[in-house]
Amino acid sequence: MRNSVNRQVRMAARPVGAPKDSDFRLVESEMPVPGADEMLVRVIYLSLDPYFRGRMNDGPSYAAPMQIDDVMIGRTVSQVVESNLDGFAPGDFIFCDPVGWQEYGIVRGDALGLRKLDPAIAPISTALGVLGMPGFTAWYGLLELGKPKPGETVVVSAAAGAVGSLVGQIAKIKGARAVGIAGAQEKCDFVVRELGFDACVSHHSDTLLADLKAECPKGIDVYFENVGGKVFDAVFPQMTLFSRLVLCGQISQYNATSRPEGPGASLIMGLIGRRMTASGFVIGDHRDRFDEFQNEVAGWIRAGQVRFREDIADGLENAVGAFQGLLEGRNFGKQLVQIGDDPTR
Amino acid sequence: MRNSVNRQVRMAARPVGAPKDSDFRLVESEMPVPGADEMLVRVIYLSLDPYFRGRMNDGPSYAAPMQIDDVMIGRTVSQVVESNLDGFAPGDFIFCDPVGWQEYGIVRGDALGLRKLDPAIAPISTALGVLGMPGFTAWYGLLELGKPKPGETVVVSAAAGAVGSLVGQIAKIKGARAVGIAGAQEKCDFVVRELGFDACVSHHSDTLLADLKAECPKGIDVYFENVGGKVFDAVFPQMTLFSRLVLCGQISQYNATSRPEGPGASLIMGLIGRRMTASGFVIGDHRDRFDEFQNEVAGWIRAGQVRFREDIADGLENAVGAFQGLLEGRNFGKQLVQIGDDPTR
Repeated sequence: MRNSVNRQVRMAARPVGAPKDSDFRLVESEMPVPGADEMLVRVIYLSLDPYFRGRMNDGPSYAAPMQIDDVMIGRTVSQVVESNLDGFAPGDFIFCDPVGWQEYGIVRGDALGLRKLDPAIAPISTALGVLGMPGFTAWYGLLELGKPKPGETVVVSAAAGAVGSLVGQIAKIKGARAVGIAGAQEKCDFVVRELGFDACVSHHSDTLLADLKAECPKGIDVYFENVGGKVFDAVFPQMTLFSRLVLCGQISQYNATSRPEGPGASLIMGLIGRRMTASGFVIGDHRDRFDEFQNEVAGWIRAGQVRFREDIADGLENAVGAFQGLLEGRNFGKQLVQIGDDPTR
Repeated sequence: MRNSVNRQVRMAARPVGAPKDSDFRLVESEMPVPGADEMLVRVIYLSLDPYFRGRMNDGPSYAAPMQIDDVMIGRTVSQVVESNLDGFAPGDFIFCDPVGWQEYGIVRGDALGLRKLDPAIAPISTALGVLGMPGFTAWYGLLELGKPKPGETVVVSAAAGAVGSLVGQIAKIKGARAVGIAGAQEKCDFVVRELGFDACVSHHSDTLLADLKAECPKGIDVYFENVGGKVFDAVFPQMTLFSRLVLCGQISQYNATSRPEGPGASLIMGLIGRRMTASGFVIGDHRDRFDEFQNEVAGWIRAGQVRFREDIADGLENAVGAFQGLLEGRNFGKQLVQIGDDPTR
């Protein structure tokens, strides 16, 4: 059962655009030996995920880049071969984050995400998919950030993928309409027939925007974004008032050699990488909070903690000039026009 | 005290770019007469606000556009001249939304925002500024959406304006560092010396990004956006992990004749107009929720409410090809590579 060599795939060069075969190297290295509080594990399943592509670039991302000659990263499901770690015995199935593209690896007791898997509960491969980080991504992003309500419309791109396929199914469970976006017709059919989405449109269509509109007659309340580019551009104009964009990925941009393409793409990449929230608001929607505001700020003014300044133009005939100045930033303080006498001054 | 004519400013033409004098017309009209449940009021203060500019355009906005020959919109502080409305008597000072650019107006009992003002509490003009919608905008946007924590850095553009000047002062009250962005040096000085911001940089500077960086050495945790364009572009790269963008306005774009300029500007305008929230996330930040996820989704799988599909490449030597295919969308379901035997299947 135990080999004498350990085959590995290492990064041979940083890809420019789409990764070429020559950016990788299959090597044979020595079988590693576990130290104290370590295990030797045999890899059964390796998960491939789009985010690897970003880690192959040099430069800032939300995680440190790989270096040339590193074993390619990747989450794995493995079986313990030899264990110096309490609680783990040969034959145990485990999941952990760091092992990567190799046949054998060393796992330390403090390995990120390390846990035992019980094949009786679900196939062990699901720890890399629907019951692993991709499923977790779908569940957290949709429910915590997208917050779909019954009757709302949820759109998800890469709908046949590991994340997208669960997003739409959870949307259905929560009583929302689920519309997918995928590529091949075969994937679109799968999403509707096997996964139970209400509809799925192909991003290969020349009429993507119209196709989406036909399936989302009341607009899009939640968009779970995995793709970016032209797919985002077709979705964005159809988002409703108070709608939510859940920004998970931009797979269409990961192979890009120049700056991200399309309006907003670099903004979206920044929002994801820095886990930012951008909230547009119009204050007139929140009049129910006005009294609370007024009490608090009037108190701060009385306490001398808030000061204010007004810029008062004199007379209706000067209103136009004052408005023109306001748009050019020539006012200094809140711009008012005094139209009649103020008997309180 | 009562005139026989009512002077008004009406929209004469829809502006192209910056509003010209000829886009407005000063007219004399008949003094209006209040009907049942109406008041005649004399305007004392008219508020000028940048959002008027959007209402002068024809086309979708978050409010209906004005029509040619309409009296220009605007919130006012007025004094009651004649009242057929219970609870309001001649001499009372009032605030309400609709009266606009004119010396006299009719106010109905159901006028938006109608309330009496007590000059003993604060100057009546503050109902248009620090204690009115601009102040409310600052208070709600910063505290509900920006959520500044003690020690964080809050940046606000148009810092000397009605909204911005309160944003920075509230940030200080909440224990944050407040950095303004304004135009003229005189305004920057005012923001620091009179309002107590920690610093204020000028957007006229050729080194805006570096100037901001010097004043925000730990990055920017909250940006309250009023301006857009090159100001946004200087702020965005400096936003920290888990930072918040409060999107209030884009004054630099309101006079634009073409589509909004600069990366992300049209996206930001859309987020504001449709009160959207865009949340970037990286699932690894949320491992504390993993068990909850797994229990819930495993239950859905057992109940037949969630289905999944895996695409399993065979052997380490096929990992590169499978990864290349994944980035091009050639996989169908969660992409795995089987590297060793799975004794559970």
